[in-house]
This record gives sequence, structure tokens and C-alpha cells, in this order.
Amino acid sequence: MTLVDKLNWRYATKKFDSTKKIAADKLRYILDAVKLAPSSIGLQHYRVLVIEDAGIRAKLREAAYGQPQVTDASQLIVFAAETGLNETFGKKYIDNVAAVRGVERETLAGFENMVLGAINGRTPEQLTIWAQKQAYIALGHLIAAASEQDIDSAPMEGFDPARFDEILGLKEKGLTTTVIAAIGYRADDDAYAKLAKVRRPNEEFFIHV
Amino acid sequence: MTLVDKLNWRYATKKFDSTKKIAADKLRYILDAVKLAPSSIGLQHYRVLVIEDAGIRAKLREAAYGQPQVTDASQLIVFAAETGLNETFGKKYIDNVAAVRGVERETLAGFENMVLGAINGRTPEQLTIWAQKQAYIALGHLIAAASEQDIDSAPMEGFDPARFDEILGLKEKGLTTTVIAAIGYRADDDAYAKLAKVRRPNEEFFIHV
Repeated sequence: MTLVDKLNWRYATKKFDSTKKIAADKLRYILDAVKLAPSSIGLQHYRVLVIEDAGIRAKLREAAYGQPQVTDASQLIVFAAETGLNETFGKKYIDNVAAVRGVERETLAGFENMVLGAINGRTPEQLTIWAQKQAYIALGHLIAAASEQDIDSAPMEGFDPARFDEILGLKEKGLTTTVIAAIGYRADDDAYAKLAKVRRPNEEFFIHV
Repeated sequence: MTLVDKLNWRYATKKFDSTKKIAADKLRYILDAVKLAPSSIGLQHYRVLVIEDAGIRAKLREAAYGQPQVTDASQLIVFAAETGLNETFGKKYIDNVAAVRGVERETLAGFENMVLGAINGRTPEQLTIWAQKQAYIALGHLIAAASEQDIDSAPMEGFDPARFDEILGLKEKGLTTTVIAAIGYRADDDAYAKLAKVRRPNEEFFIHV
């Protein structure tokens, strides 16, 4: 099956089989795909929480209008945007580029100026929205890689970000919950699995120029 | 090769081979993957422009700081968020759900209330940001599906959205340019292809709870 076949097989899972766990190597594989998501100027302005703890998940479920996927899926993935993007963050990124590529930091001066300009040219609110958008690319990678591995996924925006941040202690880490996804295996009796997939007709979605 | 192998092969292409075009069936395949991207409540709050016209692309390149990928890639993909999300848009979506699933519209009343509440509970600015975020999931799908098909991609935020909207006549369509991606085949001499991929170390990116 191709990736597109798998994406057609996939649906927003409402009921997970809570007895089925994703094997460690498959989870690692999916997280690799997430980490490989590109981001604006390569900054990776967000972090990814992999939540297994049952007690924490019970609290998060309450903060997500009781949605059962939060506790019943194999893992809950939380994409949390960086809220403290500043020159220090940008410079640390350049340090990492220099180290990974084995080049003198000075040779990256032009790129560094560009990165710092992109950070300094935005208000704090714009910086957070910028960071949040990048996390959604990684969500796209998560869905694709999970589907490729016959693993179900349910991305969700229906939760209280402030309560999530509090439960997960994210504020003190300079992070804020942006979007979440439950991953695992569908329950045999999830009625939603049988519903036809709804998408806008091609002529109302694509524009060819 | 697995999807993760392909994502490792991929990089932000700076120089495309302008003589190589993506075959029509492969382009269709990639667009199918884009269309299958999930979105909040399924609204698909954005549209996807597939731009081949050389004259338009020359203008867009000027509005993208002269970046050569805009003209030299096989296609330029523009993700444009809906700016006019309102009750009419929400109701049309419910019409489509009823039609695709062959159910009486009345049976969707609860879902319709939820959809309209999600729209009416946001300011116009919040609606646009909400729509823009969804487009980034589709960008993630684009990158994954293109990579799977050995097709290069260069997502870009470095452009003037207002000028893009003007060149593409998007304002009158109730759309605004959000993010773009060039797709095609790397030039043999793109030096960027050889650079080591830079990502945050796992312990600075993932948090296990």
C-alpha cells in the first residue's frame, strides 16, 4: 500500500483499543518522522511531549472535555510551542548548526543575522503564532508516519491549553500547548471507522494557475 | 526505503533542475495526500494553488525576495487560508457531510451547532490564524508524500503575503497566502544537498512524561 492508501485508511479515531500499545521501535520511528519535520529557518520552535503516565492523562482528559482518546490511546502526543523565542534561542540554534556541520561559527554570521532578524522583527504574540504553525507541520508528519505503520491517530484541538500547560508544568519551561494527537490502535467497534471520508470537491479545493 | 529514510534524504532544496517536471500521475498523488490532511472539525479552512504559469511565477519570485525555487521548481504550491469563515461556510460544510455520507441533514444538528459555535466563538483574526494552522498540516503531508515519491520540496515563508495575494487575485476569493512550497527535482550541483541535517538533540526536543 502507498502512503496515500494508508491516509485513506486513516480516520480521526474516536475510540482506541486501550489494551494495544505501540511497539517501542514503531514509536521511535514515528518520533523520528516528527523530528524530521522542517520548520521556518530550521528553528524547531516547539517541543514534543510523549505522554504515557496514566495519572497525568486522567487529568488531561478532564481538560479535554472528557475525550476518551486522551486516556485510551497508546500515547498522547502534545505539541508545545516555544513562548520565549529570543536572541539566546537564535544563537543557540546557530551554535548547533556550527557543531553539527563542523564549520566555524563565524562563517554563519550572515545566516545568524537573518535568524536574529526574524526573531526580533516579531512581537511576542507573533513569535508564538509563528512557533505554533511549525508544530502543525510536525503533526502532518506524525499522521503520515503513523498511518504508514498502520497506526491510528486522532489530532485534537478541543482542549483547554491553559489547563494543559498547568498540568504539564509547561509555563515554567517557556512552552504552551498548541495541538495534541492520540496515537494507537482503533477499537474494533469504533463506528466512526466506517463513515465515508468527507473532503471538499477538488474544484472547490485546488486552484490551478 | 521507509518514509523516514525518505525524510532523511529530503532537504530544503535551494536549487531545482528547471528541466525536470513532475509526472502528472505523481503530481496527482501528492495532491491527493494534501487533500487527505485532517483539519480542525474537518473544515479544510484553506485552498491549495498549483502554479505552473511562468509569467505569474516570475512575478511571485519578485515577491519572494528573488528566491529561484519559485520559478525553477516543477510546480509552486501555495497554501491560502480562508479569510471569510462564517456561518455560510460552516453550513455548506454540513451540507457536504450529509451528501457524502448519505444522511439526513437533520441528524447532523448537534455537529452543526458545534461547527457554528467554533466559528462564531472566534474573532476574524483568530479565524484566519486557525485556518492558517490547518494549512501547515497539509504542508506536512505534501512533504511526506513528495519525499516518498523521490520528489524534492522546499517549503518557504520568505515572501510578501500581500503581494502574493494581489498577484494571484486571492483577496476577492476570500483567501490569503499562508505558506508556499516549491516541488520538483534538485539540481545536481545544489551544494545544500550535501550539508548535514541539523535538528535539536532528542533530549532538547522530546519530553517523556
